[in-house]
Amino acid sequence: MVLVRPENAQQARLVRLLRDDGPRSRVELGDALGLSRSTLTVELERLVARGLVETAGPAASRGGRRSSLLRLGGGVRFAGVVVAPDRVTVAVTDGELNVLAEAREPVDVRTGPEAVTGRAVELVDKLRVELGIAELTGVGIGLPGPVSAEAGASAAPTALPGWQRFPVRDAFATELGCPAVVDNDANVLALGERHAGIGRTVDDFLYVKLGTAIACGLVLGGTLYRGATSSAGDIAHLPLGEDGPTCVCGESGCLEAYCGDAGLVAAALAAARAGRSAELAGRLAAAGTLTVRDVAAAATAGDPAAQTLFRDAARRIGRVLVGLVSFFNPGIVVIGGAADGIGHILLAEIRSVVYRRSAPLATGTMPVVLSDLGGRAGLVGAARLVSEQVFATG
Amino acid sequence: MVLVRPENAQQARLVRLLRDDGPRSRVELGDALGLSRSTLTVELERLVARGLVETAGPAASRGGRRSSLLRLGGGVRFAGVVVAPDRVTVAVTDGELNVLAEAREPVDVRTGPEAVTGRAVELVDKLRVELGIAELTGVGIGLPGPVSAEAGASAAPTALPGWQRFPVRDAFATELGCPAVVDNDANVLALGERHAGIGRTVDDFLYVKLGTAIACGLVLGGTLYRGATSSAGDIAHLPLGEDGPTCVCGESGCLEAYCGDAGLVAAALAAARAGRSAELAGRLAAAGTLTVRDVAAAATAGDPAAQTLFRDAARRIGRVLVGLVSFFNPGIVVIGGAADGIGHILLAEIRSVVYRRSAPLATGTMPVVLSDLGGRAGLVGAARLVSEQVFATG
Repeated sequence: MVLVRPENAQQARLVRLLRDDGPRSRVELGDALGLSRSTLTVELERLVARGLVETAGPAASRGGRRSSLLRLGGGVRFAGVVVAPDRVTVAVTDGELNVLAEAREPVDVRTGPEAVTGRAVELVDKLRVELGIAELTGVGIGLPGPVSAEAGASAAPTALPGWQRFPVRDAFATELGCPAVVDNDANVLALGERHAGIGRTVDDFLYVKLGTAIACGLVLGGTLYRGATSSAGDIAHLPLGEDGPTCVCGESGCLEAYCGDAGLVAAALAAARAGRSAELAGRLAAAGTLTVRDVAAAATAGDPAAQTLFRDAARRIGRVLVGLVSFFNPGIVVIGGAADGIGHILLAEIRSVVYRRSAPLATGTMPVVLSDLGGRAGLVGAARLVSEQVFATG
Repeated sequence: MVLVRPENAQQARLVRLLRDDGPRSRVELGDALGLSRSTLTVELERLVARGLVETAGPAASRGGRRSSLLRLGGGVRFAGVVVAPDRVTVAVTDGELNVLAEAREPVDVRTGPEAVTGRAVELVDKLRVELGIAELTGVGIGLPGPVSAEAGASAAPTALPGWQRFPVRDAFATELGCPAVVDNDANVLALGERHAGIGRTVDDFLYVKLGTAIACGLVLGGTLYRGATSSAGDIAHLPLGEDGPTCVCGESGCLEAYCGDAGLVAAALAAARAGRSAELAGRLAAAGTLTVRDVAAAATAGDPAAQTLFRDAARRIGRVLVGLVSFFNPGIVVIGGAADGIGHILLAEIRSVVYRRSAPLATGTMPVVLSDLGGRAGLVGAARLVSEQVFATG
């Protein structure tokens, strides 16, 4: 069975509704989309004939003849791939973007795009075979840092050194034999929150991704906002001070240089070596180096120096958010990507700065929350990314 | 003749197209909106019968029978009102939002909302009578500072002291006997640029309003973006430094405290009194006080101290824009509201900061320009504001 795209705008709306809201009766579909009975019958018949939609059993009775539920066809299967600097994570989902299986593996993106994308393709293909799937409907890929949508490739020489000329999208499309779409990881995470997280109920929200790289994803009116040249949300290199730490981008005092994982680790190493933290010094002596996970473990173990590092970072992120929140007036701010255990330390400081200095109209009722989807947000979001393209008008 | 709203979505799209693109033939209207010949004929007949649309003369021949152009009816007449701290400006427009007549008058908003809105109503009504208009189709009003859309009133106690409980929208609607809509002046200016200025060709842009108050208007996908609680663009009180000048809001170091007219005048007075500018000291001695127009005149006359004041302000505005531009990735930034003669001084500094430190993907092709509509942008935008409501589906 070869799945093809929706043939017209009505079909596209039907499959997107079934993707987002799950199985529905004919009556519910007609009501939700304002389609006449005859149009609905014709378009659903065509979708069923092509395997995009199938019957899912009887709907709850409303009296009279029982109608049946419709859902996306069992042949609709998306893959999501998230590349992080030190690992690759993949999943296969059904048409409603429920994760059917996932896998992860440590990688080093500096080994180059051929090796990393090749390994990701192998992981996806292994899941595909294990799940008995003949053909994938599409694959979405999230990459760290800015992405060129036109080229389907990374535009982030600092996050993915050596990847800029490699056609990531086309490599996945060729190897997996299905449509592929790439975007930056913050956008993919925001899409995942929109589909399966707290963003389901909020049309305008801001997702802030912490970690190795710092970035934002913006959802406006329920859809991802990418900006005039697809770089919306690119806040990593906002200048916070003229004499701050040197950043990978070559400037100094960038948000990411202070608050990204590398900046936090550098500050933790300095604290350990200057004798400001016995806890960090002990971990450094034991392991020979420090990672952000070590710093987070020290903070959750109560080390004041490590806690101060995260609090300082959170205050700086908060200061940037003050501007963004006043300007953009989101319904909610979602924070994701914090190292294990320190999310709540960060959240308390971020909230304190944002609520104190943002425009009161913008933040009076605006929650700042931690993502509760964790890593799965990126996988679901990557699947959603390609589903947006596949489920567009044919 | 009583004009009523479009009766359905097709009619609403037709009148909005005629508003934005001017007279069009039946064929052009059908093509632009993807309407069948029969639907188009029915809906246009209804619109003509109700006076919303009329025949405008023969269309250019394409061979065959000559078709006629259609345009918005001569009874479609909007009013636009812009309230500034020291003056009120009003205009009456046709359906395409061409200004037919305008008037302005000095006022002091501190005399209270009854007096100022009463005078604005009189000015609009005078224009209406002079133009021989029986009834206005709607009136849009721009107010300085945040506005509560629900209440139709000011939410800016610092910009409009004493106005918060006064129902501006309802007062205009009652006095002029037509629908009324209020919004903040930055939104109204952005709408004007969208309709008649450089924003006509750019779907995502950012309008920065300087002057007494500082604010942004955001156009996304061709329409105004207001945010979750209608406060998007509210950048006046972004903190730039802990020990900056005290702001009207009670905090210190706000963008507006540095770069709003009052902040500029305070800095100019300090320069004059400290003997740092003979030019400013002379103007102060002559007039007993300084206004932002005096400071601008001194700058354009070559006074280095006055020029430095504007350059410093522009650099601070640029620093805020670095964040907003990286985050929002607009197609263009439009700067409006600068005092006469100093727009280009400001523009040069703003550009220098924005291009130097914004994300290169966001600003590589992004122009930063001065508004070329001037004050008319607000009047056209206020008319557009109410037309959006009147020309929505009935």
